[in-house]
Amino acid sequence: MAGQATGKRARVVIVGAGFGGLWAAKGLAGHDVDVLLIDRNNFHTFVPLLYQVAAGELAPEQIAYPVRSIVRRQGNVRFLMAEVERVDLEARCLYTREDRIPYDYLVLAAGSVTNYFGLESVAQRAWTMKDLSSAVALRSRVLEILERAVREEDPRRRQALLTFVIVGGGPTGVEFAATLAELIWQVLVKDYPELPLTEARIILVEAMPSLLPGMHPELAAYARETLEQKGVEVRLGTMVIGASDHEVLLKDQPPIAAETLVWTAGVRANDLADRMGVEQARGGRVVVTPELHLPSYPEVYVVGDMAYQEDPAGRPIPQVAPAAIQQGSHAARNILRAIRGEALLPFQYRDMGTMVVIGRNRGVAHVFGRTARGFLAWLAWLIVHLLRLIGFRNRLLVLTNWAWNYLFYERAVRLILK
Amino acid sequence: MAGQATGKRARVVIVGAGFGGLWAAKGLAGHDVDVLLIDRNNFHTFVPLLYQVAAGELAPEQIAYPVRSIVRRQGNVRFLMAEVERVDLEARCLYTREDRIPYDYLVLAAGSVTNYFGLESVAQRAWTMKDLSSAVALRSRVLEILERAVREEDPRRRQALLTFVIVGGGPTGVEFAATLAELIWQVLVKDYPELPLTEARIILVEAMPSLLPGMHPELAAYARETLEQKGVEVRLGTMVIGASDHEVLLKDQPPIAAETLVWTAGVRANDLADRMGVEQARGGRVVVTPELHLPSYPEVYVVGDMAYQEDPAGRPIPQVAPAAIQQGSHAARNILRAIRGEALLPFQYRDMGTMVVIGRNRGVAHVFGRTARGFLAWLAWLIVHLLRLIGFRNRLLVLTNWAWNYLFYERAVRLILK
Repeated sequence: MAGQATGKRARVVIVGAGFGGLWAAKGLAGHDVDVLLIDRNNFHTFVPLLYQVAAGELAPEQIAYPVRSIVRRQGNVRFLMAEVERVDLEARCLYTREDRIPYDYLVLAAGSVTNYFGLESVAQRAWTMKDLSSAVALRSRVLEILERAVREEDPRRRQALLTFVIVGGGPTGVEFAATLAELIWQVLVKDYPELPLTEARIILVEAMPSLLPGMHPELAAYARETLEQKGVEVRLGTMVIGASDHEVLLKDQPPIAAETLVWTAGVRANDLADRMGVEQARGGRVVVTPELHLPSYPEVYVVGDMAYQEDPAGRPIPQVAPAAIQQGSHAARNILRAIRGEALLPFQYRDMGTMVVIGRNRGVAHVFGRTARGFLAWLAWLIVHLLRLIGFRNRLLVLTNWAWNYLFYERAVRLILK
Repeated sequence: MAGQATGKRARVVIVGAGFGGLWAAKGLAGHDVDVLLIDRNNFHTFVPLLYQVAAGELAPEQIAYPVRSIVRRQGNVRFLMAEVERVDLEARCLYTREDRIPYDYLVLAAGSVTNYFGLESVAQRAWTMKDLSSAVALRSRVLEILERAVREEDPRRRQALLTFVIVGGGPTGVEFAATLAELIWQVLVKDYPELPLTEARIILVEAMPSLLPGMHPELAAYARETLEQKGVEVRLGTMVIGASDHEVLLKDQPPIAAETLVWTAGVRANDLADRMGVEQARGGRVVVTPELHLPSYPEVYVVGDMAYQEDPAGRPIPQVAPAAIQQGSHAARNILRAIRGEALLPFQYRDMGTMVVIGRNRGVAHVFGRTARGFLAWLAWLIVHLLRLIGFRNRLLVLTNWAWNYLFYERAVRLILK
């Protein structure tokens, strides 16, 4: 075998089966290397649609796909379900709770976690949609709080139960606010005749002076309009500084009586990055070379949300799925080049632009320098995400659900799971 | 309104949104009564298919349906999500943790719980599929134990990890054993090339001398044959008397080294029955009159797994979905007759027979006195269960999944959720 001819096959360990890790594995599949893909879950999560799980539009099973059946056909890729606790850069090995795993090349793609910017009271109470379990928990929370509201006689306390504060005016916050508004005022209103759901409030809080920071101002304005048409209160230039069980505290403004605080305001690199003793940029992201490896450890690559790199214009590469995918594939390419003794190639980020869906029939898109909004942007978003979804069967089921929800103003998934 | 003309509308409270309670609600829908349906979950669970959730064939969302959207169109039926803690028969009211709820008529349909017959060590370690969450937990357990087996070097411990003991040779035990065999040896074998899954063992233990007690001996024999063809070890006349973390203890036989014990060997009435101070039969079931109410409280009906009643031949009415459905409807009918001052009617159980599916293309059926086995019985089972499933959309998705699993020897749902 060629593998033998070139001596012992190089062992590549990939940490994380998100977009970065999965595409790194795809890039190495079928080549003359042994790949071990590690994730603490046995499934890949299609993160861009997590907010739809949180809003009961999709079932968890529809946006998660078993890693083993993805790598099944790739003979040189094995999977291990484990939590990586520490990396020993000198000894070139990493540690899970059970095992010590040596590597010749390492790809760190462990992603990011929610960033509460040190707000302890928020960290304790906020709901997120950063992974499958938190999205399911948020879904149960929304439905359960309505069941509690049914039993609540005191109008003031009921009002607080029916008030949802969403922090963060980025794509996730905007998309979730829109779909939550439709869930409550178009779907659940049919299920809770005894509840005055007109009392319900959805408040989207963004610290910047506009929504969707970084997107074209025109699109941001359109997004705001659309949200307000749906009944969402948009509060710009407002900062959340804390939370109690019944209130959300704002800077220089009276608190909001609300029982549910949803936090989408920021991420920081996976804690693994903090435990490696390497240079980190804002948000704990690991600084990498243009070739995507650690400056002093060329055998260690970092990709996706965990990595920090700037484009030629000095702008940090965004923490989005397309960047992770491109970096994962590029890391694979460079590893193969290194093995063959070829010069490494610098990574170049191709910005695919941004698409944000704002509920039914509405979206904004900024693609290849051109902007679009309304129905077309919504349709484009739908198609792109459907095509990106891993697994033909999942695509089929997601499409069924979307069609169902769309046609019947329904929400497929409304189970409160404990 | 007619309601006013006849004076105050009678208030009927139904405890439990399973088959019995749901059909009682349907029977009272649109009539001149106020109905309050109470369940601790906000969804109805299609219990006969829980074992397929446990085996990763179906997603939880596909066999559970929100109660509120079932009763949505029934103006006189309201829903309350709450756990009923106590019934005060004298005061004609019941208590949840939060509320005191009075009733004119009560329908108790709280179902049954797993019966461990006092085996504490089993109760602590056994896995069940008695409700949605336990079925999901069992699914995660099966998949997680395979991930653990991948890391296990010691062949003896790996063997124990890969040994599944299923207790109870009734329909649930037989159906789960068959589908687990297919999951492991037809589906997962593709995902775990590094695992010697031929080492895996599935052992079905039944205390009686035959499987499917009560069914035609010929069918029982066929079920056993089919299971053994699939690789399941069937142990009849064997009793499980205890369990440790690594062993299942048998009466008069050496213990089995196994990490996973699945218990389907029996049920007892919901604990609510024990807290009412009324006459109970075997399994804690509440003894009811031929009209389905308590002997000394004609306004209190008990239906489904919770109720004990004998048919004219003196055989107890079985704890199966069709019986619960018939009793639920009958209780509704009798309540309406009582309100109108008409004589109550005794309940007559129409035995629809039994159908058990034994994996792919195989089943046994005993319907209207006639027996069938093999492909036809399997097909009949498929159709009946599909038609019975609540919610057109759920039927559609379940069919999609079944077709997918059938055609591609796949299992749709293989997520380990923590």
